[in-house]
Amino acid sequence: MPKEFHPPARILMGPGPSNVDPRVLLALAKPLVGHLDPEFVRIMNNLQELLRTIFGTKNHLTIPISGTGSAGMEAAFVNVVEPGDKVLVCVNGVFGERMTDVAERCGAQVRPLSTTWGKPFDPQMIRDELRTFRPQVLAIVHAETSTGVLQPLEEIRDILKEFPETLFLVDTVTSLGGHPVKVDEWGIDICYSGTQKCLSCPPGLAPITFSEKALQKIKKRTKKVQSWYLDMNLVGKYWGSERTYHHTAPISMNYALLEALRIIHEEGLENRYDRHRRNHLALVRGLEAMGLSMLVEEPFRLWSLNAVKIPPGIDDVQLRKKLLDEYNLEIGGGLGTLKGKIWRVGLMGYSSSETNVLYFLMALEQALRAQGYEVPKGAGITAAQEFYSQAK
Amino acid sequence: MPKEFHPPARILMGPGPSNVDPRVLLALAKPLVGHLDPEFVRIMNNLQELLRTIFGTKNHLTIPISGTGSAGMEAAFVNVVEPGDKVLVCVNGVFGERMTDVAERCGAQVRPLSTTWGKPFDPQMIRDELRTFRPQVLAIVHAETSTGVLQPLEEIRDILKEFPETLFLVDTVTSLGGHPVKVDEWGIDICYSGTQKCLSCPPGLAPITFSEKALQKIKKRTKKVQSWYLDMNLVGKYWGSERTYHHTAPISMNYALLEALRIIHEEGLENRYDRHRRNHLALVRGLEAMGLSMLVEEPFRLWSLNAVKIPPGIDDVQLRKKLLDEYNLEIGGGLGTLKGKIWRVGLMGYSSSETNVLYFLMALEQALRAQGYEVPKGAGITAAQEFYSQAK
Repeated sequence: MPKEFHPPARILMGPGPSNVDPRVLLALAKPLVGHLDPEFVRIMNNLQELLRTIFGTKNHLTIPISGTGSAGMEAAFVNVVEPGDKVLVCVNGVFGERMTDVAERCGAQVRPLSTTWGKPFDPQMIRDELRTFRPQVLAIVHAETSTGVLQPLEEIRDILKEFPETLFLVDTVTSLGGHPVKVDEWGIDICYSGTQKCLSCPPGLAPITFSEKALQKIKKRTKKVQSWYLDMNLVGKYWGSERTYHHTAPISMNYALLEALRIIHEEGLENRYDRHRRNHLALVRGLEAMGLSMLVEEPFRLWSLNAVKIPPGIDDVQLRKKLLDEYNLEIGGGLGTLKGKIWRVGLMGYSSSETNVLYFLMALEQALRAQGYEVPKGAGITAAQEFYSQAK
Repeated sequence: MPKEFHPPARILMGPGPSNVDPRVLLALAKPLVGHLDPEFVRIMNNLQELLRTIFGTKNHLTIPISGTGSAGMEAAFVNVVEPGDKVLVCVNGVFGERMTDVAERCGAQVRPLSTTWGKPFDPQMIRDELRTFRPQVLAIVHAETSTGVLQPLEEIRDILKEFPETLFLVDTVTSLGGHPVKVDEWGIDICYSGTQKCLSCPPGLAPITFSEKALQKIKKRTKKVQSWYLDMNLVGKYWGSERTYHHTAPISMNYALLEALRIIHEEGLENRYDRHRRNHLALVRGLEAMGLSMLVEEPFRLWSLNAVKIPPGIDDVQLRKKLLDEYNLEIGGGLGTLKGKIWRVGLMGYSSSETNVLYFLMALEQALRAQGYEVPKGAGITAAQEFYSQAK
């Protein structure tokens, strides 16, 4: 029989999951109640309220989907897209590609609009496509986990005012809780995320929110949503005032999300974003002092996910293995066309700390040195520390 | 800000979730590792091995789906059903109805075959339909959570030998871990379950297994699986030897499932089934001694979910509210056409205990008495205790 599992004490600085506050782990360990228990219904209301705050929305239908971030993506598309609908998907990384695939599986007429991985979209390029294609849905990733690019959304919002028939669908998996997300202010109609990134809750739920305009599109559907599990007409009734049974909610995961959101509320959103920005900047200073460079140009770098170019001659897999085996430190490799070319260093939620930045720079220096890469001793750490002391 | 949640100490004797062993709760609280961490990959292998044992299968593709039992149902259908396929669904309760809905959303030509709720299917009736309809898939619920009916599957297996082109799809959400489930012996091609019933793990994962014949059908598909999230071509690569990233697995839930399956392994499957049967029989003795009767005839009663007829004149909602408020005891009401007509009393996994049977009979007697129902004092408890002492 397999032994009891005693996980190693990993420092999670990859593309997610991030480490979670011990308070969240303890919330997971609380005894179960039923999914229709009045006490559970009460915390469902709390969850919705806290999610609305962090999404920056008044949307009634703001809930955690019972699946991971990718289930959130699927829920977003299957509900608002009907077969034959035109969907414009902005692709500059793996998650844009995944959106294309998901939208195609809904029977949509998908037009992918591509730009270089590692660069954001020029909003004018999107406007041109909107004019010729006139899609029902424009889909874009706010924080591309595969490249570390932050896509500003204000200008796209302004452009979309010319296209009132188009729904604005945004992936905030790697931004929500680490970067400001302003659903109502940015005119987003469908916005989803995952719990295991900047919310620092274990993977397993996908917060999502639908605007009134998105709900109208869903109501006017002529064909049923192809996913029974993710059909907002049904799920919405469980989370709505009816509390009609749909599927059994993942009770423990919802406990964890509640505690994670309470922690965010205690810290305050602005403080939290500042912390993410500060640790990101310190990390970049440190990396640059070590002669390394970032894939993404300023000001489009994510604070939560840092894409670092792997220097020539360095063995990616061997270095990451050394960090994991000898330092209990997880970072991510590149995906798709960036495989072997970048490291993805996450500073998300609970994992975004001065301790982690310094520890990582120390470990990376040693791991690089072990492969013969010359780096001035302690340069990264010193630069990061200087930054922190100036920032205080 | 919402306060920290301190759940009441519920005794969960509804249709699920069941209570879970404290060892499972503690497993949830263990620190996270990444979804591609070698240590996590190791427990993925353990999970698959233990799931194969409990499903009674050698099927390679035996995994926990990252969603609740209903996601398991959806994964079963979306993978093997292509638009236009003929699907025969046996409907004698809510979950058969749900299968119909899910299969229709896959574009299948669905023929529902109905029988009275509370009764099992006559296999000859299924044979007749198979002969005229010649479906690609026959779908049936092994343990109907809405009615408490156990559907024997051996005879259907024998009938299916005449129809080698038909896949056998079975829902074991409320049987797996409480009743014997023998996927290979019964010739089942697709079998799914949920974690929150007889496995006594919190809701959030759906164990599923696919036979080689089912995989061949999936490989021959001409159209992509409509769900990206549940596409076994992709999910299977993450759980297969490639370990290709698909979505971030719900780490903590997988910890919990591993511990729940370890507990089952320690108890032994036969001991566990005996326990479920014994507590079920004791409960029935007790209920009958109180003048109550069961919806389902012997030998088709589920051990895990007992459908008890509500006596005339008793207010269902008021009684269940009293049990919850005054006894911290959750039982379920009827669903669909059985709403207000039955109670559903779960004895699943950790919740299937002598303690719970006696406590429930005590509480029910008092709650019935409070509504003027005449019941000989202590009759239910005495009958159950007599049964237990004879059974020892």
